[in-house]
Amino acid sequence: MSKVVVLGAGSWGTALAIALADNGHEVRMWAHRKEHVDEINRTHRNDKYLDVDIPNNITAFHHMEEATKDAEAVIVVVPTKAIREVCGQLKNYITSSTQVIHATKGIEPGTLKRVSEMIAEEMPDFPYENIVVLSGPSHAEEVALRHPTTVSASALNLDSARQAQDLFNSENLRVYTSDDIVGIEVGGALKNIIALGAGISDGLGYGDNAKAALITRGLAEIARLGTTLGANPLSFLGLSGVGDLIVTCTSPHSRNWRAGNLLGKGMILDQVLEEMGMVVEGVRTVQAANQFAKEQNVEMPITQGLYQVLFEDKAPKDVVDELMTRSKRQEIDDISNLLKERYSDK
Amino acid sequence: MSKVVVLGAGSWGTALAIALADNGHEVRMWAHRKEHVDEINRTHRNDKYLDVDIPNNITAFHHMEEATKDAEAVIVVVPTKAIREVCGQLKNYITSSTQVIHATKGIEPGTLKRVSEMIAEEMPDFPYENIVVLSGPSHAEEVALRHPTTVSASALNLDSARQAQDLFNSENLRVYTSDDIVGIEVGGALKNIIALGAGISDGLGYGDNAKAALITRGLAEIARLGTTLGANPLSFLGLSGVGDLIVTCTSPHSRNWRAGNLLGKGMILDQVLEEMGMVVEGVRTVQAANQFAKEQNVEMPITQGLYQVLFEDKAPKDVVDELMTRSKRQEIDDISNLLKERYSDK
Repeated sequence: MSKVVVLGAGSWGTALAIALADNGHEVRMWAHRKEHVDEINRTHRNDKYLDVDIPNNITAFHHMEEATKDAEAVIVVVPTKAIREVCGQLKNYITSSTQVIHATKGIEPGTLKRVSEMIAEEMPDFPYENIVVLSGPSHAEEVALRHPTTVSASALNLDSARQAQDLFNSENLRVYTSDDIVGIEVGGALKNIIALGAGISDGLGYGDNAKAALITRGLAEIARLGTTLGANPLSFLGLSGVGDLIVTCTSPHSRNWRAGNLLGKGMILDQVLEEMGMVVEGVRTVQAANQFAKEQNVEMPITQGLYQVLFEDKAPKDVVDELMTRSKRQEIDDISNLLKERYSDK
Repeated sequence: MSKVVVLGAGSWGTALAIALADNGHEVRMWAHRKEHVDEINRTHRNDKYLDVDIPNNITAFHHMEEATKDAEAVIVVVPTKAIREVCGQLKNYITSSTQVIHATKGIEPGTLKRVSEMIAEEMPDFPYENIVVLSGPSHAEEVALRHPTTVSASALNLDSARQAQDLFNSENLRVYTSDDIVGIEVGGALKNIIALGAGISDGLGYGDNAKAALITRGLAEIARLGTTLGANPLSFLGLSGVGDLIVTCTSPHSRNWRAGNLLGKGMILDQVLEEMGMVVEGVRTVQAANQFAKEQNVEMPITQGLYQVLFEDKAPKDVVDELMTRSKRQEIDDISNLLKERYSDK
């Protein structure tokens, strides 16, 4: 049994807090807004985010210092844009032996940093190799309902990943470890690009073949970029790659798929964003990945095509036609070459 | 322009014949039954299999010798169980410079041979390295409607794969090449196992997380078996792996998914087969893969669990519970080790 604090009380933070409480840990939650904290403690519900009862042994806190007192493990589950501020505060309340685990999917616009890199910059005294990311195909609602779910815990230091595995693993939530934090974070962040594309394909009225092509070739693109950044391409075959992609591209609840669907039906980006009235993460991710690809000189034709649809008013159908008539290719040669380099050095 | 003959006039053979005719080739079809041949030539339709008009420049034949006369390329698209008989005949009508391409997904029960191995045994004078498999996420109906579709053409001899690419590639049907015929054939054949499992998960009332877990960990299993057999694990990241899997596990038309769904709802295998009244390929594939796994000493817990559900009347829920509570794992270590061996030798 450990003393654990979950920073962030959205749907995913709440679901993870419940999973930890089920495992017998002493669990605290920290939320930004005082009213939110009070509501959780008074009603043991968090209705705005998740339709489930919160166990009585979970207590919410408004002051981070109080919430993190004596905590052996800290789970950071705030939106990407809040990571720096929260971790800048958090560094005052942890030691180098605290377990630091984050479960936030995203990439910082502009700097193109992964979440663990942002955390490391804000907590320079904390050893980077011990930062763990928890990621995988996991609707919060289903985790809260104790439906079977699998995720990856990844850190450069595999022992840290194993500690996170021990913390979360249960008969409902099966945790695998990995030492490829780059691959796990890149997979979780970039899948939204493909969800957008899948929505566009469906919106154009194309069939299952076209959607499968887009998902598969999109995954190859992400694996190519990830491998260039140092990821093991096999990670994209795993839970944070294929697994998360399946959940995101086949769930009707995916915001990114819905936005793509409207684009495929002929709306332009401004109309789509107005219609949806909320942030569509994939739009920013396309922008970031497109910039990435240019800087790193990585071939990402689908991402580039999506960029043109989103920001240059190119017709989706023209992009598809261009993708289908590119020069003929071998399926996986460039990744294979990178792999050969990777393993022949060792 | 080439003279091409398609052996087999089911839905996939017909769709491929149409794709070849669209590319300007002189296309013949061969079918087993004379009435079937006559119907195609008289009506330019093949209504039992595909709801689409067949172009006038496609002619059907009943005698294989006549159909294959002067053919530069032969496309074999008959069911797995007919491969040996058809190729035993075909060997008399081809030369070693004929292009031989097959588009049949399956594994031979008992011998556990891949389709290209069965073909090679029946045509011992034909160079194995030139046999091409065409595989990928491709509902025949959508190809016939000229909806965007992608497939892999794979042969040990990459030049042969490229010839097949040249033959089929068009603005609707994009063909990638690969020299990993083992990976492409294994992926296409074994995906039905996972479709069965996905159906069971849905039948049990589990959510998207569970289904994604099953698909992802199932894919890891198939990649593990395939890699043991000599496949490049990265092929499973491609069109014949992830791509075909997505089409099979998310389409409501998939027989294997439907069979699994009934099993998940509590039926036993005999009831399911009676209810469906047709062959469920995945059932035989589970049997073959389970035998494979034992012989090769490959860890395939999902396949083994499905075998117990199908043939030993074990309750699906018990299998899921056991899968979730296995000893804790690293996500991709065994495949990584095989890869290291593969590339460090070269």
